[in-house]
Amino acid sequence: MTDIQGEFDLMERNLYSAVISDVLDDLGYTYKNRVMRRDIRPLYPEAVVAGRAAPVLATDIYEIRENPYEGEIAYVDSLEKDDVVIASTGGSDRYGIWGELLSTAARVRGARGAIIDGFTRDVKRILEMRFPVFASGINPLDSKGRGWIVDHDCPVQCGGVLVNPGDIVFGDLDGVVVIPKKDAHKAISIALKRAKKEDLTRKMLMEGAFLRDAYEKYGVL
Amino acid sequence: MTDIQGEFDLMERNLYSAVISDVLDDLGYTYKNRVMRRDIRPLYPEAVVAGRAAPVLATDIYEIRENPYEGEIAYVDSLEKDDVVIASTGGSDRYGIWGELLSTAARVRGARGAIIDGFTRDVKRILEMRFPVFASGINPLDSKGRGWIVDHDCPVQCGGVLVNPGDIVFGDLDGVVVIPKKDAHKAISIALKRAKKEDLTRKMLMEGAFLRDAYEKYGVL
Amino acid sequence: MTDIQGEFDLMERNLYSAVISDVLDDLGYTYKNRVMRRDIRPLYPEAVVAGRAAPVLATDIYEIRENPYEGEIAYVDSLEKDDVVIASTGGSDRYGIWGELLSTAARVRGARGAIIDGFTRDVKRILEMRFPVFASGINPLDSKGRGWIVDHDCPVQCGGVLVNPGDIVFGDLDGVVVIPKKDAHKAISIALKRAKKEDLTRKMLMEGAFLRDAYEKYGVL
Amino acid sequence: MTDIQGEFDLMERNLYSAVISDVLDDLGYTYKNRVMRRDIRPLYPEAVVAGRAAPVLATDIYEIRENPYEGEIAYVDSLEKDDVVIASTGGSDRYGIWGELLSTAARVRGARGAIIDGFTRDVKRILEMRFPVFASGINPLDSKGRGWIVDHDCPVQCGGVLVNPGDIVFGDLDGVVVIPKKDAHKAISIALKRAKKEDLTRKMLMEGAFLRDAYEKYGVL
Amino acid sequence: MTDIQGEFDLMERNLYSAVISDVLDDLGYTYKNRVMRRDIRPLYPEAVVAGRAAPVLATDIYEIRENPYEGEIAYVDSLEKDDVVIASTGGSDRYGIWGELLSTAARVRGARGAIIDGFTRDVKRILEMRFPVFASGINPLDSKGRGWIVDHDCPVQCGGVLVNPGDIVFGDLDGVVVIPKKDAHKAISIALKRAKKEDLTRKMLMEGAFLRDAYEKYGVL
Amino acid sequence: MTDIQGEFDLMERNLYSAVISDVLDDLGYTYKNRVMRRDIRPLYPEAVVAGRAAPVLATDIYEIRENPYEGEIAYVDSLEKDDVVIASTGGSDRYGIWGELLSTAARVRGARGAIIDGFTRDVKRILEMRFPVFASGINPLDSKGRGWIVDHDCPVQCGGVLVNPGDIVFGDLDGVVVIPKKDAHKAISIALKRAKKEDLTRKMLMEGAFLRDAYEKYGVL
Repeated sequence: MTDIQGEFDLMERNLYSAVISDVLDDLGYTYKNRVMRRDIRPLYPEAVVAGRAAPVLATDIYEIRENPYEGEIAYVDSLEKDDVVIASTGGSDRYGIWGELLSTAARVRGARGAIIDGFTRDVKRILEMRFPVFASGINPLDSKGRGWIVDHDCPVQCGGVLVNPGDIVFGDLDGVVVIPKKDAHKAISIALKRAKKEDLTRKMLMEGAFLRDAYEKYGVL
Repeated sequence: MTDIQGEFDLMERNLYSAVISDVLDDLGYTYKNRVMRRDIRPLYPEAVVAGRAAPVLATDIYEIRENPYEGEIAYVDSLEKDDVVIASTGGSDRYGIWGELLSTAARVRGARGAIIDGFTRDVKRILEMRFPVFASGINPLDSKGRGWIVDHDCPVQCGGVLVNPGDIVFGDLDGVVVIPKKDAHKAISIALKRAKKEDLTRKMLMEGAFLRDAYEKYGVL
Repeated sequence: MTDIQGEFDLMERNLYSAVISDVLDDLGYTYKNRVMRRDIRPLYPEAVVAGRAAPVLATDIYEIRENPYEGEIAYVDSLEKDDVVIASTGGSDRYGIWGELLSTAARVRGARGAIIDGFTRDVKRILEMRFPVFASGINPLDSKGRGWIVDHDCPVQCGGVLVNPGDIVFGDLDGVVVIPKKDAHKAISIALKRAKKEDLTRKMLMEGAFLRDAYEKYGVL
Repeated sequence: MTDIQGEFDLMERNLYSAVISDVLDDLGYTYKNRVMRRDIRPLYPEAVVAGRAAPVLATDIYEIRENPYEGEIAYVDSLEKDDVVIASTGGSDRYGIWGELLSTAARVRGARGAIIDGFTRDVKRILEMRFPVFASGINPLDSKGRGWIVDHDCPVQCGGVLVNPGDIVFGDLDGVVVIPKKDAHKAISIALKRAKKEDLTRKMLMEGAFLRDAYEKYGVL
Repeated sequence: MTDIQGEFDLMERNLYSAVISDVLDDLGYTYKNRVMRRDIRPLYPEAVVAGRAAPVLATDIYEIRENPYEGEIAYVDSLEKDDVVIASTGGSDRYGIWGELLSTAARVRGARGAIIDGFTRDVKRILEMRFPVFASGINPLDSKGRGWIVDHDCPVQCGGVLVNPGDIVFGDLDGVVVIPKKDAHKAISIALKRAKKEDLTRKMLMEGAFLRDAYEKYGVL
Repeated sequence: MTDIQGEFDLMERNLYSAVISDVLDDLGYTYKNRVMRRDIRPLYPEAVVAGRAAPVLATDIYEIRENPYEGEIAYVDSLEKDDVVIASTGGSDRYGIWGELLSTAARVRGARGAIIDGFTRDVKRILEMRFPVFASGINPLDSKGRGWIVDHDCPVQCGGVLVNPGDIVFGDLDGVVVIPKKDAHKAISIALKRAKKEDLTRKMLMEGAFLRDAYEKYGVL
């Protein structure tokens, strides 16, 4: 991508996860786990994020270690422009790995949002700052003595999808899609066209057409 | 019902699922599974729907069949005035069987809403059009190559309740109730009276009364 | 506490569950189950409650008993100023133990809110009256013939936490924390200070600091 | 039943839960929840039980009450010849409500077995005494301070089936069926005939017949 | 495969699912879902099966259709030598799709076993005939009015693995592995060699060696 | 303990988890999570183990690391006489962390058994060698590229119980109990006496006594 940021802005303004998912189906990614589990939800309905995956992997621990936050700090301070936090706690139900101060620090570094397969906290303030956080749960417990960063910039499983560093992610109210980097331009361009066909279909339906006729004419549904 | 539509409008304006559920208890339907599982939730808090059940049954498939949408199209184009879509995907967690274009097409045919034991997508646009959709989940994946319509106008299980074509359904923020058709008029009339007693109870409580005295006076709780 | 109500008002205005949870960690309550399961959620995002735990314990039954509501009525009429309802239905998925008339009656007695490990109903009206109810689900079914009050003013397990009568509870959008009574004053005072450090950390981050430097300066995260 | 015990012995020797379930389907009980959830399993493969349901209902508590076992003792000492224990702990995962001493005491009173929607303990000794116990789990924790008998000789839900005192229950390696008392004789007599047809079908299949021909001849499958 | 049956017999005698799974890892199938979910369990510990996948797909229905068993009959009568039944009921918890008469008919046609993502019944008799059945549950309820065959000889998902007609399956006490047909010969030959290295490792360990030295020598674990 | 091994042998011969759990209740450990979750099951009914906890902690990873087994090897080679393996994979459903070669190596080092909050494989051979393994599941997948040892000789959560290095564990067909080290002698001595009272109670019941009388005489149940 010659102009990555412009592309991400364009995606956030004009695309939605359902149309991207449909395009990935047509490009042959059907059955290939490109859409995260439905329990990864945005914290607010208008949340939209597109960007470059920056994964981090955590595990449960059961004692307070020295420098309990060293992994979180190193990870967040390493974030770059247009990154999207992709964090996995391996399904832990013991703590919130993400929160408002991390959101603030991540945004200052240039990150566009966060997808958390795990819990988040400080939700009220995250809502106020409108940082698009998607998470599988909300919980006030801190990571100290409960979670530990195993690694970052490594492959992780997030919402059931294997995410590699640099993959393109897109999230909105319908869910989160992971786009194969090499097909990203192509997928976006097809998705924009497809969205237009959906607009025409909708218009035809609202004028009273039967679904069969609209689908025959535009081929989308 | 001599004036079905009037009745449905009346229900949507004046009743709520809890009072209907209580009346069904008193009419002897206790323990008889008339209320859907609590994970069937409205997409927005103000969603209210009353109407005639129009069931459709889907199953999971694992290959792209010819004419992948023929079942959905035939079903939606067959909807009539005052119908409520009742769709069951048998608990599939692989795709969204409902979306915004189907909502638009259904509304044009006269449908009043949709109850989906399965996932829906295009939620942002469904919120904009204020079509009362209740679903057990949200997910951007399309049904093509994932789901297939087995039949429509047949009994289905939706949210744990066996729903037959023509049953009366009512949904609001508390959940979804299925009313036996033959007792619908009676249930509505009793429910309207009961709602008034609840208003009187509330008034008495807000004036400082103990619950015991209010319950002894009006007999509702 | 010499001025209990003032303290609860202060807590509701200035504290949040995450900072209280962190303070309890530092006071040695780590691993000790002071935070409820994440499925106990507030009915609306702004809900905040602090107060004295008033537990009630229910069990499932399968027949309509005489005086079906006698336990609920006795319990609600016994509530006192600054109490918070703590109700447990033992994970029942069959009925809503809480609703709007009970909320109204409880508020008139002086209760500040309700934490329900179970279902609630009449949610639309509870939203209107802004009574802070936290529950693990929503369902229109009544307790008559389904639930029975075993006891009140006894220890209960709510959201996975053992709550004793008189414990201090605090709930907001992040979740619900149970504070040991004997350390309540201390915890509140430390939490207020900690909240200020978080404000300073946030400010420093927004001015562009790295997380490492902000954490080294203020020691919170 | 003129000779109840003879009937139960006959059932245990000659019938099995699958054929009884099929007969109940044909008698019109389809969809009516006559078969318990599949997680109610026998402790050993040869366990078979037929008898009269003697239900008992327990709830979770969180303190040690006076006379912690008074409910269990009263219940077990009240058992009569040909009874089958039907115990429900409401899905508690905290303790084993049944064990070997209760099994011994129940057998001495004449009980034929036990169906536990909950946990059992002392499994090694129960295996040795060959008392047919079916349970949804195994756990060494005692009921003292954890469970409390709410009532016995009352309707309970066990394995998802509403069981009334006096219902006929039958359990084997496939699961547990609850037979409506009024149709018990009829169901048993039809089931014995049906079992014979299955024997003939099996014989024909083993001689090389296609399933279609065997089913056309005997009408069972 | 020039001598398919010989190969399957050889596999059943000399291989086990863990060594096959390891070989598939080394051939590059890691992360590719070649091992079924762990809840697909053999009915008896000695059950072993190798053969050619013959898939069948069922869906839940809620009414008794004409010729309720026509799909099951057509499927079982179509089975050929060395087939293994691969049945999926889409996670239904309402009925047993497999049983003893179907096992008898399948064996007579030449089938070597059955893998059921769903429930089975008549378990006692299946144990007696030693037909290797693997299933995700046991339940006495019949499919009539509950399940319907959608298709057979089509791709299905079984135990979380996409299985195509003709894939090679292997099941034993550890679980069920699906081997890509094109690599079957290669995988078997490597697996046989690897099994020998495991024998040597075991011998060395039993003579007192440390694991580090045994692993350095033979490279398996 | 002056003669630790003798003590463990004695425990395995004469005690059972239920009586130890009862004694821990009486010593004041009620409600304190000393009994593991019921899904940690022995691989064979006669499995019994007593010994000293040697914990190891694993996390999920998603790439093949260099020296993929270095953590397992270091851990197993560090085991000492009378140790019991306590392994936690944090609820991973992706691989078996334990198997037969590790069992063989562990036994040679003097370990008495293994408790796995996670999956095991090679079950057929583990059954043959009669090494008492308890696990929450069975699965043929290897840990390479799926699991990674985070630490050993550290606190872990296993079956819901926090286990510290050196704690005493006891497992049998009823489940697994963790005994506080400082009270181990006392608990064992009380448990042996209590087991005798249970023998007397059983004898009295088998002679026809009512439970009430037997409980009044011996005080156990």
